[in-house]
Amino acid sequence: MIDQVPTTIKNELHDLIEWLAAFGKTGHGGVTRLLYDTDWQKAQHALKYKMEEMGFNTRFDDVGNLFGCIRGTENEEKGILTGSHVDTVVDGGKYDGAYGILASMIATARLFHQYGAPRKTIEVVSLCEEEGSRFPLSFWGSGNITGKYHAQDATRLADHSGMSLTDAMHGAGFGIGNYPDAFRNDIACFLEIHIEQGRTLELGKKTWAPVSHIVGQRRYTISLTGESNHAGTTPMNQRRDAVYAAALMVSHVIKMAGEQQNGLVATVGRIEADPNVANVISGKCRFSLDIRHHEVSVLDRFSEETLAFCKETADKAGIQIQINKWMDVPPVKLDQKLMEMNLKLAEDAGIPFRKMVSGAGHDSQVFGTFCPTALMFVPSHLGVSHSPAEYTGLDELTIGVHMLMKMLYHLAYAPEKNNGKCEYE
Amino acid sequence: MIDQVPTTIKNELHDLIEWLAAFGKTGHGGVTRLLYDTDWQKAQHALKYKMEEMGFNTRFDDVGNLFGCIRGTENEEKGILTGSHVDTVVDGGKYDGAYGILASMIATARLFHQYGAPRKTIEVVSLCEEEGSRFPLSFWGSGNITGKYHAQDATRLADHSGMSLTDAMHGAGFGIGNYPDAFRNDIACFLEIHIEQGRTLELGKKTWAPVSHIVGQRRYTISLTGESNHAGTTPMNQRRDAVYAAALMVSHVIKMAGEQQNGLVATVGRIEADPNVANVISGKCRFSLDIRHHEVSVLDRFSEETLAFCKETADKAGIQIQINKWMDVPPVKLDQKLMEMNLKLAEDAGIPFRKMVSGAGHDSQVFGTFCPTALMFVPSHLGVSHSPAEYTGLDELTIGVHMLMKMLYHLAYAPEKNNGKCEYE
Repeated sequence: MIDQVPTTIKNELHDLIEWLAAFGKTGHGGVTRLLYDTDWQKAQHALKYKMEEMGFNTRFDDVGNLFGCIRGTENEEKGILTGSHVDTVVDGGKYDGAYGILASMIATARLFHQYGAPRKTIEVVSLCEEEGSRFPLSFWGSGNITGKYHAQDATRLADHSGMSLTDAMHGAGFGIGNYPDAFRNDIACFLEIHIEQGRTLELGKKTWAPVSHIVGQRRYTISLTGESNHAGTTPMNQRRDAVYAAALMVSHVIKMAGEQQNGLVATVGRIEADPNVANVISGKCRFSLDIRHHEVSVLDRFSEETLAFCKETADKAGIQIQINKWMDVPPVKLDQKLMEMNLKLAEDAGIPFRKMVSGAGHDSQVFGTFCPTALMFVPSHLGVSHSPAEYTGLDELTIGVHMLMKMLYHLAYAPEKNNGKCEYE
Repeated sequence: MIDQVPTTIKNELHDLIEWLAAFGKTGHGGVTRLLYDTDWQKAQHALKYKMEEMGFNTRFDDVGNLFGCIRGTENEEKGILTGSHVDTVVDGGKYDGAYGILASMIATARLFHQYGAPRKTIEVVSLCEEEGSRFPLSFWGSGNITGKYHAQDATRLADHSGMSLTDAMHGAGFGIGNYPDAFRNDIACFLEIHIEQGRTLELGKKTWAPVSHIVGQRRYTISLTGESNHAGTTPMNQRRDAVYAAALMVSHVIKMAGEQQNGLVATVGRIEADPNVANVISGKCRFSLDIRHHEVSVLDRFSEETLAFCKETADKAGIQIQINKWMDVPPVKLDQKLMEMNLKLAEDAGIPFRKMVSGAGHDSQVFGTFCPTALMFVPSHLGVSHSPAEYTGLDELTIGVHMLMKMLYHLAYAPEKNNGKCEYE
């Protein structure tokens, strides 16, 4: 299969990935493009010119999403949207988000140059924000397109320096009135191609994964208050030790998660004690709890059991407990028909593939409750992402572009054959 | 008994405690006097003048320990030393250390004014440092007197701002050559009176505790290295989660300590994860372990079992473990004869007392391996110390002074009657 992929796609993809990674390049070889910062602005404008060079009609919306359009001959009201996000985490990799935009640009432009205008409109999108790295929200791009957010929500939020999202948006030349409203009601479907950010494909020696669900996520902060005391003069039975209580909770909850065997994951990534010195019993301890699964019922049951255990443990230890649920994103089931088409195309093409659940959040989960949506993964080497060490081999990346071309061909050029054989080879 | 204590002692003690607490008074009503800082200098010089007013001959040594001497008529080579430390933790209380100095000053001066010069020399000492709050060492005062440290060791150590102990010492007017060498070979015994810093006396409704042992302390930093990974895309069985491993260790070790029932205490006061964010499995976690008991064999056994469990847990979890023992202070048994005298005096005086082991470190543990040493506690309200909320009632503080006068009378005025009835009443 790899041999079938024209070397020209490989070269073009390689060059574009390196080109885009230069906007916000860090000393460690990573990329930092935070929403509306200088490097983000440079990247988004450079992408606009690049799209124009490649034959797209381009435009921004008022929150800074960039669109490159190839108009369909049937002039239907709704078109196909494909792309991903341009922002990164701090010192992130060059594939996360960027690859999905560039793959969509290459796939759409190549189809256009090979077959002319499609029957259905194809728009490539470079979404302004997904990572939540600068402001305390995520999915600002897809959220505004789908009506989950509106540009006017931006006044309430500020970054670490105290700058409001509104001021940052206007500083980058966007904001209400400067461009058309981001909300769209003319999207037939959304396709996103992304690196996996895990090792499932690599360990399973697969190249391609149509994604069936994106997990729901619940995130809690659990705050414990006991009593700070002298580590030498307080007998063990007179202690109300918040770190000990936290350790009992964390060890039990993570052990329970490991025993589920149903794909559930639970993580305590953050833990902090106060006063946090070696010779004082910490009176306070706070930890995060992140729970993910693709079924609400599983999330419900595990969260309930877990939090009940924490409360019981706190009670026994004479510790006050406060549980703050600050994120509750429901799982999203992606479009069944698009996935079946996807599976068939992969099978016909002889590409080693597997269906997957996505444990990470993606713009596709926002689109997934708004329009038929397909999310597809290519492997991540060692599962590393959000790091300068993020890497996917060029052959695998190219197969992704190839598969996206097949899907777009089916949907935009031969819509009546969605379940038939692909004419594009 | 309380009624027997002259009101004049109470008033004098109250006034002196408030007077000394004004040097380094904080916004929270606490006290901060760090070794050689401006407030420390003011306090130590003010104590010198106060001692002189009260009839003492005063002098500094080269590390800044202050001595107030009442010369004995027998002109013996060795004298009795009594006192405590003048430094505090950051935002500490007004009794820790300070009370021991002031009690010694009042007791000695009152005996002198009542009975004239003692037969044996009594020296009151305001030790320059015990807490370890500014430089990465503690017992700098008692350590220099007993030969554990020497002023020239100071070049190697720096505070958080990078200032060396030598420069700080010279900045405060001390250092080698400016005053006599701190080392002493003329100390017959050391007496220290201190607040308990725990609740044992208060809960047991006792006023006075002759201390039999000061616990040994071992402190470890345990550093775990697993693998940092995405909290959503890494299945539970592919994780090497350093926070989970730490939680397993901490919960087991503290539970074990609680089951010892032999006075052993173990504390994990400090815990830190890296990168310490909610949606990333922490690849690193580090925690402190503080273990205390007054018998080496118990410390040995518990440390061994504990660390073996940690190593085994790390191995099972595929986690690298590094165990750094950065403190190993052996337990100290205080002088048996002085303690027996002390117990008898308390019994005769009808004071509610109990023998105790000290779980906290004190200058007495440094003197305890150098000369016969007695350490005595008065209660700490709620066991609070190292805090502006540190408090001991004035009646209890005054009983402490009264008891110290009895001990000094026996040792310095009526040495032949050390085990007999006290003439001072």
